[in-house]
Amino acid sequence: MDERYKRALETVAKINGPGSDRIAEALDEIAPDFHRLVMSFAYGDLNSRPQLDLKSREIANIAALTAMGNARPQLEAHIIGGLNIGLAREEIVEIIMQMAAYAGIPAALNGLMAARKAFQTFDAKAR
Amino acid sequence: MDERYKRALETVAKINGPGSDRIAEALDEIAPDFHRLVMSFAYGDLNSRPQLDLKSREIANIAALTAMGNARPQLEAHIIGGLNIGLAREEIVEIIMQMAAYAGIPAALNGLMAARKAFQTFDAKAR
Amino acid sequence: MDERYKRALETVAKINGPGSDRIAEALDEIAPDFHRLVMSFAYGDLNSRPQLDLKSREIANIAALTAMGNARPQLEAHIIGGLNIGLAREEIVEIIMQMAAYAGIPAALNGLMAARKAFQTFDAKAR
Amino acid sequence: MDERYKRALETVAKINGPGSDRIAEALDEIAPDFHRLVMSFAYGDLNSRPQLDLKSREIANIAALTAMGNARPQLEAHIIGGLNIGLAREEIVEIIMQMAAYAGIPAALNGLMAARKAFQTFDAKAR
Amino acid sequence: MDERYKRALETVAKINGPGSDRIAEALDEIAPDFHRLVMSFAYGDLNSRPQLDLKSREIANIAALTAMGNARPQLEAHIIGGLNIGLAREEIVEIIMQMAAYAGIPAALNGLMAARKAFQTFDAKAR
Amino acid sequence: MDERYKRALETVAKINGPGSDRIAEALDEIAPDFHRLVMSFAYGDLNSRPQLDLKSREIANIAALTAMGNARPQLEAHIIGGLNIGLAREEIVEIIMQMAAYAGIPAALNGLMAARKAFQTFDAKAR
Repeated sequence: MDERYKRALETVAKINGPGSDRIAEALDEIAPDFHRLVMSFAYGDLNSRPQLDLKSREIANIAALTAMGNARPQLEAHIIGGLNIGLAREEIVEIIMQMAAYAGIPAALNGLMAARKAFQTFDAKAR
Repeated sequence: MDERYKRALETVAKINGPGSDRIAEALDEIAPDFHRLVMSFAYGDLNSRPQLDLKSREIANIAALTAMGNARPQLEAHIIGGLNIGLAREEIVEIIMQMAAYAGIPAALNGLMAARKAFQTFDAKAR
Repeated sequence: MDERYKRALETVAKINGPGSDRIAEALDEIAPDFHRLVMSFAYGDLNSRPQLDLKSREIANIAALTAMGNARPQLEAHIIGGLNIGLAREEIVEIIMQMAAYAGIPAALNGLMAARKAFQTFDAKAR
Repeated sequence: MDERYKRALETVAKINGPGSDRIAEALDEIAPDFHRLVMSFAYGDLNSRPQLDLKSREIANIAALTAMGNARPQLEAHIIGGLNIGLAREEIVEIIMQMAAYAGIPAALNGLMAARKAFQTFDAKAR
Repeated sequence: MDERYKRALETVAKINGPGSDRIAEALDEIAPDFHRLVMSFAYGDLNSRPQLDLKSREIANIAALTAMGNARPQLEAHIIGGLNIGLAREEIVEIIMQMAAYAGIPAALNGLMAARKAFQTFDAKAR
Repeated sequence: MDERYKRALETVAKINGPGSDRIAEALDEIAPDFHRLVMSFAYGDLNSRPQLDLKSREIANIAALTAMGNARPQLEAHIIGGLNIGLAREEIVEIIMQMAAYAGIPAALNGLMAARKAFQTFDAKAR
């Protein structure tokens, strides 16, 4: 296993905990190389860099995905990742609320609905 | 002066320092109420809430504006705001770089060009 | 109750009729302040201004939400709002059709599907 | 000359007045058919339909182009078109301001800067 | 039947095969003219032009719809169209994967999920 | 030099010819690692894969960047890359024209303006 992918898996483990392989499985069928390529880039090359802590990185990711408004599954995943890495629910809600000023109220509203769903998923796993 | 606007001006002062009134002046000509309305919302209602520190808020704002890719003047302003509030240049660069994974490499590249420009503006003011 | 929120509720009542509190309830759980903040801004500060009639404002809102293409629930809500405020179905359909030229045919097609759904919701309520 | 293009030119004349051929000339060099194809679609097929008046159509166009935030030259052209078709400056400003709620404050701010520029172009032509 | 619409139907037949009239039916209810107008433009005016082969056009369409990320039904339809016109599944997957670099990993991931669904629809029809 | 970066440089050389290092230099000042990271991903991991030829990849890239409409410098670069890899000007123009149907006429118009500029840059270099 090469360095980047190893580093990616370590970073992903901090964010997601074990067992978030459902997307990897779905991709396996049609694009078997894709998961490794993008994990290596997103987590091996970028999110794992020491110049910025993971908490700040998840703030950035949640903000951007809320603002873009066309990546609901990834937004939910990063909200759960934010909880895993130590962001408080209240902080996540603030980040998303704030996007109302920069990307419009619908983007923030839909982001909050994603947060509500992600918090429920997180709680269901915790049980 | 109402509470929200006062709170907005206080928050803006922390982020921008004095004297960022050029946009306000340009707006005055055609939309004299707009500046106050949106400042009150963005800074009086949202950015000033105590549930999240200003540093985290600027991380979110820089990430979102980079990802959206259609708000260059606002991105530069928030990069300068980030420096004023205590983000290191290296941290700002990391936030923008990371957007390559979420919003594509062109968005990150253009964001870095905005940062380069904003850093120069910041340095010119500091002199 | 402060002025802005009062004005917001009055404007919302004209557009939505009574009883569109389902979103407010969903938000209450995780972001209890958000509904009031954004209603005060969108309806108290902006949509209620006398410089432009509500009909024209709903035309603008429907056009923008269709063009952005990532805010389906809000688009449906504003289509129903448009009907409440006196836009004809035919006019709403024209606004959305026209977006094909400015935001592409998929945006217009998906907007028309939202209109079809919103018209059905409106008819179901009317019964 | 076919029906659609004739209808397009008539509608364009109402909106733009004579002489907005600079884009057509620039296109001629590399895509000589494009101007006619898209004019026929946007103005012959859509904007000229009798089901909605041109004023309402320009409200929709200005709102959408402001919200999308990546079509500055077209936004300026439609603001001038709006003035030609009888929208007041104040109304145009309201439409754009309102986009702050739906597409974010930066989109509205940049839209207002486009309006300021378009009003100047309009005044320069009028002299 | 006019020339453009005839040409549109011929081009659509090459891409979609017979029987993709479900959207047309849904539109009929509320916007009976729309289907013909946009088919004539997209397929009669543009996709049928001899300067570029249909295979290249479907590559462009799949790439753009993946990158935009807000037109899932149209993306699935064009993936099936790509298969009908002779693109290999592997090629379609590559186009979508590549969008990770230009529009971000979430856009590519969601595009691959659309491809997976479209391939299943295609196989179900083939049976 | 690792495998990916070597593969990236080889692929970039096919597309850009020698000497497109101006962006790399601008980045060097503030984000010295970024150029290599993203080149390795975009060209080492994705564009160089044998499953799809470079011509098809450039069609996809030009289409996507036109449709997104917020990455003008990258669009111009990929239009020049398309010429280098063997796309005819007429084909590039067709790809961009076609985006009018999928992303709206303004996106296509602005894309054609980028093509006009890129063709001029290409011709100036050729002299």
